[in-house]
Amino acid sequence: MFDPLEKLKEYVRQASVSADPQFKDGMVGAQKFVATLLREMGFAVDVIPTELHPVIVGTHGSDPRWPHVIIYGHYDVQPPDPLSEWTTPPFEPVVKQGRIWGRGAADNKGPLMVHLAAVGRLLENNPQLPLRITFVVEGEEEIGSKNFKSFLVKHKERLRGDFVFMSDTGIPNPEQIVITVGLRGLLALEIEAQGARTDLHSGLHGGALMNPIQALAELCASLHTPEGRVNIPGFYDEVCEVEPWEREELRRLGLQEKDYADFLGIETFHVPPGYTPFEAIRYLPTLEFNGIEGGYQGEGTKTVIPSRARVKISCRLVPNQTPESMQEIIFRALRERAPRGVRITITPQHHAAPYVVVPPGRQNTPPDQSPVLARAFRATDRAVAEVFAKPPLYLREGGSVGLIADLKRVLGLDAVMMGLFLPEDNIHAPNESFHLGLMEKGIKVAEKVLMELANPA
Amino acid sequence: MFDPLEKLKEYVRQASVSADPQFKDGMVGAQKFVATLLREMGFAVDVIPTELHPVIVGTHGSDPRWPHVIIYGHYDVQPPDPLSEWTTPPFEPVVKQGRIWGRGAADNKGPLMVHLAAVGRLLENNPQLPLRITFVVEGEEEIGSKNFKSFLVKHKERLRGDFVFMSDTGIPNPEQIVITVGLRGLLALEIEAQGARTDLHSGLHGGALMNPIQALAELCASLHTPEGRVNIPGFYDEVCEVEPWEREELRRLGLQEKDYADFLGIETFHVPPGYTPFEAIRYLPTLEFNGIEGGYQGEGTKTVIPSRARVKISCRLVPNQTPESMQEIIFRALRERAPRGVRITITPQHHAAPYVVVPPGRQNTPPDQSPVLARAFRATDRAVAEVFAKPPLYLREGGSVGLIADLKRVLGLDAVMMGLFLPEDNIHAPNESFHLGLMEKGIKVAEKVLMELANPA
Repeated sequence: MFDPLEKLKEYVRQASVSADPQFKDGMVGAQKFVATLLREMGFAVDVIPTELHPVIVGTHGSDPRWPHVIIYGHYDVQPPDPLSEWTTPPFEPVVKQGRIWGRGAADNKGPLMVHLAAVGRLLENNPQLPLRITFVVEGEEEIGSKNFKSFLVKHKERLRGDFVFMSDTGIPNPEQIVITVGLRGLLALEIEAQGARTDLHSGLHGGALMNPIQALAELCASLHTPEGRVNIPGFYDEVCEVEPWEREELRRLGLQEKDYADFLGIETFHVPPGYTPFEAIRYLPTLEFNGIEGGYQGEGTKTVIPSRARVKISCRLVPNQTPESMQEIIFRALRERAPRGVRITITPQHHAAPYVVVPPGRQNTPPDQSPVLARAFRATDRAVAEVFAKPPLYLREGGSVGLIADLKRVLGLDAVMMGLFLPEDNIHAPNESFHLGLMEKGIKVAEKVLMELANPA
Repeated sequence: MFDPLEKLKEYVRQASVSADPQFKDGMVGAQKFVATLLREMGFAVDVIPTELHPVIVGTHGSDPRWPHVIIYGHYDVQPPDPLSEWTTPPFEPVVKQGRIWGRGAADNKGPLMVHLAAVGRLLENNPQLPLRITFVVEGEEEIGSKNFKSFLVKHKERLRGDFVFMSDTGIPNPEQIVITVGLRGLLALEIEAQGARTDLHSGLHGGALMNPIQALAELCASLHTPEGRVNIPGFYDEVCEVEPWEREELRRLGLQEKDYADFLGIETFHVPPGYTPFEAIRYLPTLEFNGIEGGYQGEGTKTVIPSRARVKISCRLVPNQTPESMQEIIFRALRERAPRGVRITITPQHHAAPYVVVPPGRQNTPPDQSPVLARAFRATDRAVAEVFAKPPLYLREGGSVGLIADLKRVLGLDAVMMGLFLPEDNIHAPNESFHLGLMEKGIKVAEKVLMELANPA
């Protein structure tokens, strides 16, 4: 069996920044690393081209009666900038303080190595394991998985599995594993208000016409109620009730509002009635303003009536909202409220569906849940409880990971998302690192889960 | 007597851009030009330093029983950029198509030359003219006349005149002279909304806190009524009634709403009830948004909750509003309405008082109007009617010229503002020019006015 830490060092050394064409060598290096390692583990590997970065698919086991696990990961990493803030070079991995330091160590090279090492150990000890395993490792996660959906559609047959096993989410501390059971969706759009042909002198023309900033402000101000709900008819119609077990699970996480307010640097929260801030960011949809601009933005005064102004909006969606139907009701409200005197243009931007999976035995578990998925959840729960001496928590998160919803929508697959990175791992920031104790424990958990799936009790 | 056109060429050749220290030679050249010409005309001249560019003061006549005219002008010009759009070099004056082309030709070197030439002719023919004349020619008009008020305060005694005669406003066409009898004031401010300590991920935190863009949008949206009035208690309390003669004068200008809408490139006006757009921009105060910015403003989507957002606002004020009392009621309304959950900071920026003067014989002419001012208005009216074969119109304008209000507030002086530049003169733009026919007629008018003041009928 290979040494996971030595292999991870080699993997981190590949500067696989998907966003920047200058890192092409690193991308190819990371592809080769993953493909070679999988082949050494006995997998049949294909490096499948997409419009940009290829997806690596490795398969092992072929008996259609065996359970089929899809293990997802990504070999691309965030850009390392700003380089001056790194204490060691981002692509020269260093082991110190019980961690491995380097870009991608935690997102997602370390966690993928956990799964690779678990499978490696398992197959070494059980060459005839009655389990089909397919690794799907993409190269565009950090730039929005743009080509992943069409890849899934094209290779649907080969990817017909029972569930997805993966680690690309976070946990609050090294003692508490969290299984992410839901993600919010996303619907982004931009609104432009166009007034006069050009910027105008506010002395010569002020008072004659609608100011595009005023029009946008009035339109934007109409979108929330004073108590903080989104003020669009039907906005909450498809929102799932939060189950008592979910609220209870979140309480067990032990977050304190005071700590959260201090972390954010705010004095008061602004949350719709009936929800804590921790609930609101997980269970409720939002409509947020991400950016606004118009007119003069420099220092001092310039007395201009701007010709145009625009605002960027994104909505987080929750089950069972769909981007398609939400776009319809949001755009309708915006069009109905568009102030007179300016031309309003609404441009849809990207979107992602929300995702939720209910672990077996909860109040709202679907009666037709896949038995393999249910076994995977139960196996993970037991393995985490054994290895960490503490069962995992099952929580929805507020972020959006479009590929999870794509896996569900295209392949019908749910995911067991076992979190492995910590807040202090600095993902997407300088001085990224990955906790070696978690790596070792994670390998044990993953190995036990796969073993139990192959040989149910 | 000097040739005004030859002198104007020499004057335009001085590249007197007050905003840019690289044009220091041009500023000094223009100062010397004005001072020398005034001395040649028999004036006692002082070049009085300020914190930045000096003011040239030239006096002629000393008998305290004689009427005292202050003639205002400015020797500084706008920067010539973008240079590539000029068809002839900005500081190499060219005479063609009945115009003189060059930066500052119309703003304000040509119109000042009109007054210089009129006085020159008058004094040549009437060396013993019973009239005191003081030229005040400043060098910071294009950068806000920042040091002009303190100059006025310091030299108050010397500048005790009967009225100000000047030409630094516009007219609609070469046949129609307009006397500007009012200007709006200005009150500028900036509002910043500060939310969380840093920009936040809208997935991880969206729904927990007030978004600063939302807060600003709600605050801004509260500031107007749907029909277009400013929605701040007391905002209109001090606004003068528009007199029927003012409306009538404006109607005689013959502006068409259709033409104005086409010029602006808008489909509908947005004007408070009871006013035409032409009235609203002259007679009503405004609250305009000049700029707004916050969060992500690039292409595409960035799902951020910005830490801060800010908006620039300026109000145009009309008689009898004062910047001081208006600031009080506006700031009070803003503070009362500041949304919870963000910190709102309101920063006052510069301001200027509104100005109005009522020509003699109108409904609301003050009974104690200076007899010399009244004679100056009547003389100007007659002279324009003779020279242009059409009497002038008396109109308020929507812009703000702080120095006019300063002359009134510090020295108690009203101004007879005889417009001389045309829309096609391209002031503040490339290819500025000044109409030579207007120059010659303007000289005749100014000469007649001063002659009549010195020797009342």
